[in-house]
Amino acid sequence: MGRWEPDARERLVVAAVDLFTEQGYDATTVVQIAERAGVTKSTFFRHFPDKRELLVAGQETLSRLLAEGIAEAPAEASPLEAVAAGLVRASTAMGPMSREVAPRLKAAVAASAELQERDALKSVSLAAAMTTALVARGVPDPTAALASELGVLAFKRGYAEWSEGDRPPEDDFATYLLKALDELRAASASLG
Amino acid sequence: MGRWEPDARERLVVAAVDLFTEQGYDATTVVQIAERAGVTKSTFFRHFPDKRELLVAGQETLSRLLAEGIAEAPAEASPLEAVAAGLVRASTAMGPMSREVAPRLKAAVAASAELQERDALKSVSLAAAMTTALVARGVPDPTAALASELGVLAFKRGYAEWSEGDRPPEDDFATYLLKALDELRAASASLG
Repeated sequence: MGRWEPDARERLVVAAVDLFTEQGYDATTVVQIAERAGVTKSTFFRHFPDKRELLVAGQETLSRLLAEGIAEAPAEASPLEAVAAGLVRASTAMGPMSREVAPRLKAAVAASAELQERDALKSVSLAAAMTTALVARGVPDPTAALASELGVLAFKRGYAEWSEGDRPPEDDFATYLLKALDELRAASASLG
Repeated sequence: MGRWEPDARERLVVAAVDLFTEQGYDATTVVQIAERAGVTKSTFFRHFPDKRELLVAGQETLSRLLAEGIAEAPAEASPLEAVAAGLVRASTAMGPMSREVAPRLKAAVAASAELQERDALKSVSLAAAMTTALVARGVPDPTAALASELGVLAFKRGYAEWSEGDRPPEDDFATYLLKALDELRAASASLG
């Protein structure tokens, strides 16, 4: 099996995460990111308006995919089944690059208050996207909000499981997400 | 009934939130906040190391109270009952000032990407504080994470209900929190 070949966009993300880890988010410039990725500055700007958007872009894609998956779930699907469909759809955006970069991204976030805030906002945005999509399906308000939080929690927990340790590279991210969601559904029975 | 009389610390928070709303978080200086609050710059620094901490201080208090309430809940309390105890404890930190400032805080957050990120990080921090306290009680991991998310959601929803509209000022915040948590518990039965 051939090794995964990142394109310019992916190389830019990997280079940015590495530089954020090494020298911090604030100290890292667009020029440095482009240089490390082996592309020109104008190639950077063809993909991202600035270094901030480089991180936000992934979040918007995930939000859109989660919402689409929820919207297209069968009409008879329960709120959590719709969330599961959203997670499966979102998993298609997370390829080998996401997995490869995960440990360094985690280290970069751990070291930067600014990236922690951005990461937290990402969770809130994903939850909001799912809640809107669930409400549009007719799921009543408190249930929609709760199902979305389970979705975010499943995403975080599944992502952590998927991206840590030495698992075979063909491991499917969707499997991890659905397992995490299932564990949370089971846990909801023991809340009291 | 006498009108609520804010002390210097509360006046600083109200002044800061107003200035953030009027001119943005970045453009607001410590000198301006102190001036608006009618105190000296050194009074500001007696209460807060900088304007960032002015917002973070409340979050640390809430996290501590949530954790204490959970830790001190009866041994036989279910995870959600322990969360309820945490919410009741946390509600003691939210007095008339919190309620009075809420609409302006909401406007300031809506207008500032930086404050949205800070607000999102606050939710994550509160959830983490509750999860740690629940795990220390012996609540297993996925249940603890889930119960904490319900707690954060109840806090947000109860806070929104409590701080919006024209309710009598003696309305107890704890009542709103417990009602919100109860609605979420009921909703968890219809997740599917």
